[in-house]
Amino acid sequence: MSNHDLPTLAIVGATGAVGTVMRQILSTRQNVWGEIRLIASPRSAGRLLSVRGEDVEVQALAPEVFDDVDVAMFDVPDEVSAEWAPVAAARGAVAVDNSGAFRMDSDVPLVVPEVNAPAARNRPKGIIANPNCTTLSMIVVLGALHAELELTQVFAASYQAASGAGQGGIDTLHDQLSKVAGNRDVGSQPGDVRRVVGDDLGPFPAPLAMNVVPWAGSLKDGGWSSEELKIRNESRKILDLPDLKVSATCVRVPVVTTHSVAMHATFDREVSTELAWEILRDAPGVVLYDDAARGEFPTPADVVGTDPTWVGRVRRSLDDTHSLDLFVCGDNLRKGAALNTAQIAELVAAELTGSHK
Amino acid sequence: MSNHDLPTLAIVGATGAVGTVMRQILSTRQNVWGEIRLIASPRSAGRLLSVRGEDVEVQALAPEVFDDVDVAMFDVPDEVSAEWAPVAAARGAVAVDNSGAFRMDSDVPLVVPEVNAPAARNRPKGIIANPNCTTLSMIVVLGALHAELELTQVFAASYQAASGAGQGGIDTLHDQLSKVAGNRDVGSQPGDVRRVVGDDLGPFPAPLAMNVVPWAGSLKDGGWSSEELKIRNESRKILDLPDLKVSATCVRVPVVTTHSVAMHATFDREVSTELAWEILRDAPGVVLYDDAARGEFPTPADVVGTDPTWVGRVRRSLDDTHSLDLFVCGDNLRKGAALNTAQIAELVAAELTGSHK
Repeated sequence: MSNHDLPTLAIVGATGAVGTVMRQILSTRQNVWGEIRLIASPRSAGRLLSVRGEDVEVQALAPEVFDDVDVAMFDVPDEVSAEWAPVAAARGAVAVDNSGAFRMDSDVPLVVPEVNAPAARNRPKGIIANPNCTTLSMIVVLGALHAELELTQVFAASYQAASGAGQGGIDTLHDQLSKVAGNRDVGSQPGDVRRVVGDDLGPFPAPLAMNVVPWAGSLKDGGWSSEELKIRNESRKILDLPDLKVSATCVRVPVVTTHSVAMHATFDREVSTELAWEILRDAPGVVLYDDAARGEFPTPADVVGTDPTWVGRVRRSLDDTHSLDLFVCGDNLRKGAALNTAQIAELVAAELTGSHK
Repeated sequence: MSNHDLPTLAIVGATGAVGTVMRQILSTRQNVWGEIRLIASPRSAGRLLSVRGEDVEVQALAPEVFDDVDVAMFDVPDEVSAEWAPVAAARGAVAVDNSGAFRMDSDVPLVVPEVNAPAARNRPKGIIANPNCTTLSMIVVLGALHAELELTQVFAASYQAASGAGQGGIDTLHDQLSKVAGNRDVGSQPGDVRRVVGDDLGPFPAPLAMNVVPWAGSLKDGGWSSEELKIRNESRKILDLPDLKVSATCVRVPVVTTHSVAMHATFDREVSTELAWEILRDAPGVVLYDDAARGEFPTPADVVGTDPTWVGRVRRSLDDTHSLDLFVCGDNLRKGAALNTAQIAELVAAELTGSHK
């Protein structure tokens, strides 16, 4: 513990897309922190950024900034985390990392507080990893169902937002929408979307406006994308189900923020729609919004900017009494990144201050 | 047969969205028709519309227009088909119906020529039904795989285009895109898409621009949408697999035309990605476009306006040697509606003229 009454927090990557949402989130949640240090690359050093209503000067990333820090959050690219999270840990901080650098490291817990909070205490490297945003969009719902029904298999198809590819993804979508809008002919003839959008595809391998793109991440063995394998590997680790059968197809859609996932989940126990509703209605971090007769189901436009994972379209499969079909939405910048990191950091803060039950 | 050398065709609904695509398709395919009559509601009667490069006067729908007609295509709402397809059949025409009125009638074959052409010959009511556009976007690929591997189960998540909801769907999407485009703030805060789009949601239950909407069709038992049940029931009928396990989640996306579907399909035989490629490369009506290393996979922007069903992202499931994951795209106004209807009509024409092998 530092020499304050409350633990000291460092946010590494405070100026980025997730870091910006992180500062907003820390300004609205119940405060558990003493000093909050904002860390970024040297070119951002000296800037003043607001957090908890106060202006804080950004410091350049260096080993010394972690002195007396209790928890250091990392919202930076994989290679920056790989280098600097161990530095923070060596200086005595618990590093909570939102990159992919440590997620599958067996000495690093991968934590979703609603699902596996106790795992955060076992961190031999002093590092805790935050899951990928797409995993996070579905895992709170899957975890709640698994706790009661014992998950055996899940098939997922994602509808991923542009902001999952960072600020460049958001900018590209807005640029492309401006080009295709107002032209009522575009979208009906071969190649016309590509012609109108032009060559600047930003971080995407095809036009995103008026299109869907079945690709996210990098190519792995067997034709799988890295994003699809993350869903499989991270779900297995978080749920502590090393043999869970998972198949995912990841697809980018022209939505700014909030990932959606259509899921077909199979359980060891028999299920019903009513039982699933009962479980999900009481699940922490979940909003059940499921009344198709009243037009109630989650959509990204309604979910963006909110904290919980929303779930609707819950249906017991017609051909299998052990399976459910459902549709979930989660804000990929909040629960999918900054919020879950903040929640993990708060778990550690509670542990350090002895207030954890 | 009429008194012409070639059979006479009537197109009922010639002025609608599908009817318009139908006239284009008949103008480019090898001609098998003598006279082509264009039929529509009385308010369109007398209009001149082009087909095969000739202007043809639209006739008002009435029993007499079917006299001497060999094949009558119906691209009209369910209730119009329900009333008039039997009238055409009673006058001696074979009715090829693109509505939902007769698809699940056990005395009406449901035909996809690449999959079950022989079924078209057994038509006790003189009516042949054309499947729903979403079923058609996936069934040619599933049918080809099933013929070699014996399909047992399929989970599908759709990415359905606005034009699946007709011209009103297309207009609504264009209107909404014009409103949200150019405003770089929209899409990141709760409710802002709804505010900018306004109250006119057209045929959709939520804003479609910058959103995805997990609903298509009407509400059925168990929380299923009619569109989801059509995929299940029609796939079973076309593939002649009454016990096929099918779960689908149907989602509308802000694409003008071309439906996409992510599928997880399980087979009785062991599969491999290479075997699936081999089958799909040779399958009629299918384009295999699957080289992720070169950024090659189908997207609606590239597929729109083309005839085949495109398939990519083919992967053998990591946890099941009997399952494949894949992504398909098909133009919902062409193969999904007009083209398949034209193909069925051509099957009948070949049968009537004795040229069918």
